Amino acid sequence: VIGFFVFSCICSEVRGRCWSVDPLLSSSYLLQDSRGRPKEIPHNEKLLSLKYESLDYDNIENQLPAEGAPCLRWVVCGLIGFLTGLVACCIDIVVEEMAGLKYKVIKENIVKSTEAGGLSISLILWAVLNCAFVMVGAIMVACFEPIAGGSGIPQIKCYLNGVKIPRVVRLKTLVVKVLGVMCSVVGGLAVGKEGPMIHSGAVIAAGVSQGRSTSLKRDFKMFEYFRRDTEKRDFVSAGAAAGVSAAFGAPVGGVLFSLEEGASFWNQMLTWRIFFASMISTFTLNFFLSIYHHKPGDLSNPGLINFGRFESGFLGALFNVLNYWLTIFRIRYVHRPFLQVIEAMLVAAVTVAVSFTMIYFSTDCQPLGPEHSEEYPLQLFCADGEYNSMAKIFFNTPERSVRSLFHSQPGTYNPLTLGLFTLTYFLLACWTYGLSVSAGVFIPSLLIGAAWGRLSFCPLNERGIVLLSVGGIVRMTLSLTVIMVEATGNVTYGLPIMLVLMTAKIVGDYFQEGLYDIHIKLQSVPFLHWEAPGTSHWLTAREVMSSPVTCLNRIEKVGTIVDILSDTSTNHNGFPVVPAKLCGLILRSQLIVLLKHKVFVELARSRLNQRKLQLKDFRDAYPRFPPIQSIHVSQDERECMMDLTEFMNPTPYTVPLDTSLPRVFKLFRALGLRHLVVADDENRVVGLVTRKDLARYHLGKHGLEELHLAQT
Amino acid sequence: VIGFFVFSCICSEVRGRCWSVDPLLSSSYLLQDSRGRPKEIPHNEKLLSLKYESLDYDNIENQLPAEGAPCLRWVVCGLIGFLTGLVACCIDIVVEEMAGLKYKVIKENIVKSTEAGGLSISLILWAVLNCAFVMVGAIMVACFEPIAGGSGIPQIKCYLNGVKIPRVVRLKTLVVKVLGVMCSVVGGLAVGKEGPMIHSGAVIAAGVSQGRSTSLKRDFKMFEYFRRDTEKRDFVSAGAAAGVSAAFGAPVGGVLFSLEEGASFWNQMLTWRIFFASMISTFTLNFFLSIYHHKPGDLSNPGLINFGRFESGFLGALFNVLNYWLTIFRIRYVHRPFLQVIEAMLVAAVTVAVSFTMIYFSTDCQPLGPEHSEEYPLQLFCADGEYNSMAKIFFNTPERSVRSLFHSQPGTYNPLTLGLFTLTYFLLACWTYGLSVSAGVFIPSLLIGAAWGRLSFCPLNERGIVLLSVGGIVRMTLSLTVIMVEATGNVTYGLPIMLVLMTAKIVGDYFQEGLYDIHIKLQSVPFLHWEAPGTSHWLTAREVMSSPVTCLNRIEKVGTIVDILSDTSTNHNGFPVVPAKLCGLILRSQLIVLLKHKVFVELARSRLNQRKLQLKDFRDAYPRFPPIQSIHVSQDERECMMDLTEFMNPTPYTVPLDTSLPRVFKLFRALGLRHLVVADDENRVVGLVTRKDLARYHLGKHGLEELHLAQT
Repeated sequence: VIGFFVFSCICSEVRGRCWSVDPLLSSSYLLQDSRGRPKEIPHNEKLLSLKYESLDYDNIENQLPAEGAPCLRWVVCGLIGFLTGLVACCIDIVVEEMAGLKYKVIKENIVKSTEAGGLSISLILWAVLNCAFVMVGAIMVACFEPIAGGSGIPQIKCYLNGVKIPRVVRLKTLVVKVLGVMCSVVGGLAVGKEGPMIHSGAVIAAGVSQGRSTSLKRDFKMFEYFRRDTEKRDFVSAGAAAGVSAAFGAPVGGVLFSLEEGASFWNQMLTWRIFFASMISTFTLNFFLSIYHHKPGDLSNPGLINFGRFESGFLGALFNVLNYWLTIFRIRYVHRPFLQVIEAMLVAAVTVAVSFTMIYFSTDCQPLGPEHSEEYPLQLFCADGEYNSMAKIFFNTPERSVRSLFHSQPGTYNPLTLGLFTLTYFLLACWTYGLSVSAGVFIPSLLIGAAWGRLSFCPLNERGIVLLSVGGIVRMTLSLTVIMVEATGNVTYGLPIMLVLMTAKIVGDYFQEGLYDIHIKLQSVPFLHWEAPGTSHWLTAREVMSSPVTCLNRIEKVGTIVDILSDTSTNHNGFPVVPAKLCGLILRSQLIVLLKHKVFVELARSRLNQRKLQLKDFRDAYPRFPPIQSIHVSQDERECMMDLTEFMNPTPYTVPLDTSLPRVFKLFRALGLRHLVVADDENRVVGLVTRKDLARYHLGKHGLEELHLAQT
Repeated sequence: VIGFFVFSCICSEVRGRCWSVDPLLSSSYLLQDSRGRPKEIPHNEKLLSLKYESLDYDNIENQLPAEGAPCLRWVVCGLIGFLTGLVACCIDIVVEEMAGLKYKVIKENIVKSTEAGGLSISLILWAVLNCAFVMVGAIMVACFEPIAGGSGIPQIKCYLNGVKIPRVVRLKTLVVKVLGVMCSVVGGLAVGKEGPMIHSGAVIAAGVSQGRSTSLKRDFKMFEYFRRDTEKRDFVSAGAAAGVSAAFGAPVGGVLFSLEEGASFWNQMLTWRIFFASMISTFTLNFFLSIYHHKPGDLSNPGLINFGRFESGFLGALFNVLNYWLTIFRIRYVHRPFLQVIEAMLVAAVTVAVSFTMIYFSTDCQPLGPEHSEEYPLQLFCADGEYNSMAKIFFNTPERSVRSLFHSQPGTYNPLTLGLFTLTYFLLACWTYGLSVSAGVFIPSLLIGAAWGRLSFCPLNERGIVLLSVGGIVRMTLSLTVIMVEATGNVTYGLPIMLVLMTAKIVGDYFQEGLYDIHIKLQSVPFLHWEAPGTSHWLTAREVMSSPVTCLNRIEKVGTIVDILSDTSTNHNGFPVVPAKLCGLILRSQLIVLLKHKVFVELARSRLNQRKLQLKDFRDAYPRFPPIQSIHVSQDERECMMDLTEFMNPTPYTVPLDTSLPRVFKLFRALGLRHLVVADDENRVVGLVTRKDLARYHLGKHGLEELHLAQT
């Protein structure tokens, strides 16, 4: 209760910053009205936000001399793998230690109270401890870095897809993410620590590869060659793979995850580097964990989670439908950090209350194993030498519960226990996902699947295949299969696992999209799928493109450029360069650097020995190019001319007016473009295709539908 | 000896056909002189052959109505997996049975002879048996289907890269391949049966997906929708993956192999279908083998080969250098089927002689295991209850030898045995690869690696990591690592395996390219690598393109079209359609179908109720469109006009003149193009870029080099 006061103080202080960020999974979908107060916008999945930019995956080829540093890429990938493994190790150890401590304290209290009476004190102790942890986690996320909420997988999917999500790969995000996930797991929420590892890996990759940090305001003058979107995106793929690898001990699964989500163009060397990062990451984690467990050299612990074998059904679709409505509700009504933190604490308290009630009323007693294989056995009202079986699942970290469900002897749990657990945990997990805490959905869905599977299939094949609710919820296929195969260490189960995943996907797709896709859609991100909608060949570039296009001349007046860049109503990022016919394409960021360095024709003549602008100058400004407002151009300078020839991309990709949408889509997606010029028969610019033009067509229930574009 | 006569009779009969084929790995690099006799051409790796066409991976979008059949693709992939598994199973069982029979006969003879004296009779019996098998295999390959020689992996690599290799996916090739590999393995050559499985899977895929067979002259009227290059290539990827999967029990490795070699554009659904085919294939093989071994349901036998754990060094580079010189020698001097069969038989005889000598003079006796774990123990001059250890490796199929090397107790072989074996087997394998027999190089290199590893590292970590000479020889990386991990069933060894593969690749690359790449280069195939050579940005489309281009008018005279198509000196396959400006692209195959159906403007007017030409007509002619000479066009018809508007691709991809080579390359490779039009500022056609224009630049020892184009 005291926490609320502390919290409101903190929050009112940082509120200014809270409003100004635009997170993906938190709920600040807010326009500000004239007095700066947030107002709610009518938000649904039929909108496409215009605030997200594309990454530039196409290399800018201009007349500036280029350099190369292929060997360094391996070093960077190695570093990424190492650091990701280290972070995973850190999370694992801290969670183990703190959860251990917490459960020990509560257990002692319960044991004491069971004898003395007054179990309600134990309940309160448990609730307060959990709420405290969750509060810390929720405050960090809600107030300091909303983008660090959730698992981060949808954000990374979007980033790898080529959408620039603001703040997603910052150091601050990493710190909040790592501390947040520790708090959530120790706080006893129905969450896992695997999803956040993927996001963490990506942030580490972005940071390491750039050799500098904006949050720390340090530039290590390293890896300057990699300071552009193309390279950064490649490294982020490697980081995400390393994250998967560390989370599940599945290096190949990591590579496939990155490729499934991110690859538009398969590149062998890149793939191999990604694989290298994955391997190093698993290895590092293993190595340090083996030292922590006092068994140095025993590398049998490949990931944060290791399980036996398993599966679950169409529960996934139900989960997604419920979570979909919940998310809509949250976007509408729970958009203040204050409310978000309260909701998180409420969930924590309810989780404790439910767990406690279940344990309290459970009559499922089991004999204690010979070697104390149960971690925190609660005797409660069971006979001596027995323990409460319900407590074994609830009174533990989710990872341990999963392991226990997979590996315990049949008969360890009675069906009533399992049924109640499945039901309550399902609802809790569903409520939890989307809270403003840093948390993953993988382990909870695995836990539900395991309990459900044990309930329904145990007599059939005891530790055999259990339906994979994970597949039903997240709908990843190839990479998930490989992750499962690698985590279980058994290839033979590959086919059944894949068949189950396929069934889960087909059944699930019939009712509702995958969880990550739902969240991406609800955030109106211009996400490009693999192919254009099936029924869209009758659409051509003529209908799809944006026009008219703001073009620049090869030698343009500075005043014109400044005016065009300052025009907030259009806010274009790429400008075809023309004297009538198309002869190049130049980006806003390039123009801003040119303006900043005052590369004007007149000045070049007067100052002959002036240093020529180099690629380095563009890189130094990357990725946060200053806004045009911050660049002062005097009235005299406005009359100067700028020669863009040397800096523009002289051969942008073009398509004719009659090109069909699938064809435009394929070119755009395969080459990772940001701007695609539409030219007429005479090679004159008539339009420009950007990401939003392609992303807004989708196959709805009534055939091809077009999303509305929204400024937010 | 008698065989020679038989053989020359057969060969002289089929000689006509022998000359007319253009295989990839056999050695008929022949020009015919004026009297039809073959003459040798100066052949080296600085040539680029013009006889190979590209596959059309770009969808032709014209005004003809399209159809779709997405569900059928899954059915086809399932069928491909099933049949591939079945074929693998077949090969396995036949080889097991026949090799068993052979070794039994010889063993009995040896046992008899050892007592009675006259071991030379055994030697001759052994040699004659082996030579007979090898002769059958070699005759089939050399005379009937030279393309079925070797492992087939280079050919499949080329096909997946987008090069149309003639006859590579025919049913006849499959039959020769399957029978050939049985003969080679049973014939005791230093070869494996895994490589050919990949080729077999690809042929099965091409056959099944087309729903007809030209060899059998049957059209099953199924899967007509898939009769185009795009679909066929996708299915062939799936088939190759299924082949890998059946060969090594590595479904994920199979998917990665296909992607590493073939994918230009990663497509999630395609990947998943490939994976499905792989899984089905492993499963089928497993299922039938388990029945064969009288243990139905025990699916612990995932691939044709299953091993423990392992590695080898820079032997790979040496192997490749030797094989490179040998291949050059073969191309120059061993190009008649007659000589090829003799060489194959010679190798078989030498193999027997060497094995026999080694066994004969070996003094390495080992006690017999308790349960007859040795398959064909030869006592020879050892004491009772002992067997000859050298015979254990030589007197067996290579698969069994590998398993024995990996799984036997330390001390089973003494170092001298291993050393001699490694040396001789290395030379034999090197000589064998490239013979006109159907055979793989994977198992031999594994065997060398295993023996070498056991020799050098055994005391260190007995069944531990052995250096992978395979990696050194074939230089596959990601997919090979995964194959190894899947085949050994242990993820923990992933990192060491990858590090070894990397080392092997780096060391090997320093001396010589990978074996498959060498063979591809020696055949002058226009193979496109992942990226354009690093130092080529100064080259632009202007220098790279072919010009002048033969263009057609939108409404063109039939006579002109026939003349252009008949012009053997140019022999173009794609024609830009222009009235001054570019307005479309039409293929030779399309024009031929149009001519065949006499789609002339004048006729359309006179016969109003004539059936309109449909997509089906184009598909029916696929893939063997008749040559222009076979189409009769009367003098009157030559004066008619053809309207190409409806059939041409109206929006071909274009690049401006100044586009750099890497940029052209990326577009071409990523979209799997066959023709890329180069247009000037006014959108007029100035050139055409095809595969050979891009493939001829490569990074040699003296910087960027250009290959010479050769008609053969």
